[in-house]
Amino acid sequence: MTIASASSTATHIALTTLFSAVQDAHLLNSTAGILGWDQETMMPNGGAELRSRQLAQLARLSHETFTTPKMGEYIAAAEDAVRSMPADCADAVNVREIRSDYDKATKLSSSLIAELAQTGSQAQHAWVEARRESDFKKFQPWLEKTVKLNILKAQCLGWPKGGEAWDALADYYEPALTAADVTKVFEPLRARLQKLLDRIRGASKKPSNAFNEFALPIDSQEKFVRYMAKRIGFDFNCGRLDRSAHPFCGGSHSRDVRMTTRYTETCVFDALGSTMHESGHGMYEQGLDFAQSGLPMGSAAGLSVHESQSRMWENQVGRSMHFWKWARPQLSAFFGDACDHFTLEHLYQAANVVEPGLIRVESDEATYNMHVMIRFKLERDMLNGDMAIKDLPGIWNQLYKDYLGVTVPDDRRGCLQDVHWSMGAIGYFPTYTLGTLLAAQLFEKARKDVPGLEDGFARGEFAPLLSWLRKNVHSEGRRYRLDELCRKVTGEPLSADPMMRHLEAKLLPLYGLE
Amino acid sequence: MTIASASSTATHIALTTLFSAVQDAHLLNSTAGILGWDQETMMPNGGAELRSRQLAQLARLSHETFTTPKMGEYIAAAEDAVRSMPADCADAVNVREIRSDYDKATKLSSSLIAELAQTGSQAQHAWVEARRESDFKKFQPWLEKTVKLNILKAQCLGWPKGGEAWDALADYYEPALTAADVTKVFEPLRARLQKLLDRIRGASKKPSNAFNEFALPIDSQEKFVRYMAKRIGFDFNCGRLDRSAHPFCGGSHSRDVRMTTRYTETCVFDALGSTMHESGHGMYEQGLDFAQSGLPMGSAAGLSVHESQSRMWENQVGRSMHFWKWARPQLSAFFGDACDHFTLEHLYQAANVVEPGLIRVESDEATYNMHVMIRFKLERDMLNGDMAIKDLPGIWNQLYKDYLGVTVPDDRRGCLQDVHWSMGAIGYFPTYTLGTLLAAQLFEKARKDVPGLEDGFARGEFAPLLSWLRKNVHSEGRRYRLDELCRKVTGEPLSADPMMRHLEAKLLPLYGLE
Repeated sequence: MTIASASSTATHIALTTLFSAVQDAHLLNSTAGILGWDQETMMPNGGAELRSRQLAQLARLSHETFTTPKMGEYIAAAEDAVRSMPADCADAVNVREIRSDYDKATKLSSSLIAELAQTGSQAQHAWVEARRESDFKKFQPWLEKTVKLNILKAQCLGWPKGGEAWDALADYYEPALTAADVTKVFEPLRARLQKLLDRIRGASKKPSNAFNEFALPIDSQEKFVRYMAKRIGFDFNCGRLDRSAHPFCGGSHSRDVRMTTRYTETCVFDALGSTMHESGHGMYEQGLDFAQSGLPMGSAAGLSVHESQSRMWENQVGRSMHFWKWARPQLSAFFGDACDHFTLEHLYQAANVVEPGLIRVESDEATYNMHVMIRFKLERDMLNGDMAIKDLPGIWNQLYKDYLGVTVPDDRRGCLQDVHWSMGAIGYFPTYTLGTLLAAQLFEKARKDVPGLEDGFARGEFAPLLSWLRKNVHSEGRRYRLDELCRKVTGEPLSADPMMRHLEAKLLPLYGLE
Repeated sequence: MTIASASSTATHIALTTLFSAVQDAHLLNSTAGILGWDQETMMPNGGAELRSRQLAQLARLSHETFTTPKMGEYIAAAEDAVRSMPADCADAVNVREIRSDYDKATKLSSSLIAELAQTGSQAQHAWVEARRESDFKKFQPWLEKTVKLNILKAQCLGWPKGGEAWDALADYYEPALTAADVTKVFEPLRARLQKLLDRIRGASKKPSNAFNEFALPIDSQEKFVRYMAKRIGFDFNCGRLDRSAHPFCGGSHSRDVRMTTRYTETCVFDALGSTMHESGHGMYEQGLDFAQSGLPMGSAAGLSVHESQSRMWENQVGRSMHFWKWARPQLSAFFGDACDHFTLEHLYQAANVVEPGLIRVESDEATYNMHVMIRFKLERDMLNGDMAIKDLPGIWNQLYKDYLGVTVPDDRRGCLQDVHWSMGAIGYFPTYTLGTLLAAQLFEKARKDVPGLEDGFARGEFAPLLSWLRKNVHSEGRRYRLDELCRKVTGEPLSADPMMRHLEAKLLPLYGLE
């Protein structure tokens, strides 16, 4: 054996030893992904108590498997092995990101991990009931416990000088994101959106909302949105679409992606919008490298990039005139002639009506980010002790008045509408807005790179966009952080300009404001 | 502290330490139960590869958790603690059965456990495809691997002198059952059934089969069988009913029971029979003590007792004249007037037609046990090396000719019809017949104990039977072995006489043979 091949054998052993140990720990998470999906879609009520213990056990075991001292040794050996490789090659990226995950994970005890998982599962169950009965008090003790545990988690993780607890938590969803960063984006963005909304509020022309109030049978809606998900590129051989109270995309791995939607009789756009949104997430997951399953190079880059995928399919595609040129004739296959009296213009207008409202997931593109800003302010205040949990409903309602000018009639349509905090996900919401900005910026670039991209939508051709995303985003795994990826693909740092351009180009004509 | 209370505290600590450690190991099995159900009902094809690794990992972890030397110490301490207790009190039974499980489990390595689980999951997937294409060759290598692994497992476990490999495997499904025991029951039973079948074959009167050939929409069938499951006592707050290729009852624990059925357009009895059957299993599971979840006192006694529950609801209830007096008027709520021209007598006859056929799960009560005997002979021969796996289709087909006089046209309706061997379950089939015998014997006793039991069926009253089963069978967990339970409840050892009485009392009049 020559020296070179001996060293390459040693490198190979160091890497495969580490990677298979990490994949083994991650396999428990992929199991938990099925249990989490099942809990929201299939599980009978009686399953709740043991389910929370099952999830806590998996979280504990995965954490224990990942944080053994042995794993620390494997990482050190792998770091030696990749030292001479290019920093952004797949092996080096895997080792770099595993090191980062390990250093975070070893700061947390497996009992805290298990308690967070168990509380998350129980609190989510309590949230479902509290939401059904529109009674925040039933959820309050669970939110108090969740916030307390998250503060403890943040303290274990620590945060850089000048930062705050929120930063430590957000780092899990978007590496290195801080509350200060978010504030720098949100404050000017709020002002720009406020100005746009004021103009729209004063407009004399209004798009037709009629299609949004047109009842269609839910069984047919379900067939329709499944067809749409398939046509835009979601692979049902490697995934499912079911119903849940709160739409989400979860599952196990890139070949078993579980997404959900929900249906309201009066508005097919509700189910369609959330299906296109979750399909964006689902196609990102399906685009990850299966061979790298459980490793950073086979994982999503972060939640902002994830959200850029869902928002792009929901907004840049699903609310465009090009899309509806193709989609309108499809309606008759599912709803007969029921929709025939709606013109293309009617559908396009209904998809783009701006109407400040109560529910984030039903909101239009212009007001959506306001909902996110409210949640960011509230979760930051909860963590910093600037707000007592019991005061959440009142302050929530006041912020809705201030940001959106709407009156919240009950907790169900107020502070109980979102699942996130019940799951223990604090520090998550801002990624929705960052992802929305990235969606617009990536889409501007895709349009430049792929001639006739949007004309293709009008013929039901979505594969060119999906291929562009596969190549530029999905296949990169966790190689780049949010801002790096944005610069690499678009040549510019992340900016709100493309989204504002997108909104103004669409909404000003619709409201006669050009 | 007095000596008595110090000793009772020590007892308490010894027992809770052991029990919570066992429950922790079992929690992983309860997670695997959801994944196993999901694999058969919900999982997209793409999920198969990682699913088998997920299941193997859970099996390995559960086995490792259960077989630590620490567990051995906990058991020894608990054995000391229960020494002065009555042998059949709950604590003593738990310790006794945990010891028995532990002694078996420590004979197997966790790598063998994981390999069995992974092979089971992969082989099951291969079986589904082979069955669809009716091509045994596609399944053959998997069956060869499964048999080889099971022989290895049996060798690790060992068997008493004079016994054989089959005994070691069967012990998992029915404690202490041997191939010699089974043969002693099966040989005379085959002769008695053969005689009955010969008489039926020669009868001049034949019951009407018309309702079994009457197509009804599958959506309505589904609503109908769900209603029936609910009415006989299956609790949908603590369970589900879905579709799968092969009906089964699985799930997680007594409050999350997952059962499945399947539908054929031409015969609602197919779905109804399998739903009543699986509901019998499901109600047994739901009747186990949730507080004892994961412990022997909260587990089913064995597969024969399990099968006695399913067979009783399927046969003694679901094929009785009393049941159909109530069930017939229910049909119109689901099928409109489609079934009106079938009289009560038509339905009762159709439910009880004897027709030697190809498919075990579709077979009538008189031929059912012949199917089981064939499988027992084959699996014994496979284990003992008396038959090459490649010869299975030919020998299967020959046995169907000999036992039932039917010609098997293809593997799908031949040796590929059952899921069991694909899952690695060898030594399982005879419990079907033992359970069928026990069902008849228990039912004779229930009829004596509960006046007007069957008259109640005619009014849709099934709670008295369920209560009797809850008290006499379900609440006993693993306190008694099959034969002990049978003696305790009925006062007699397990016998084929009650089943033969049941069959003759019903079939001879139907075929004009009295």
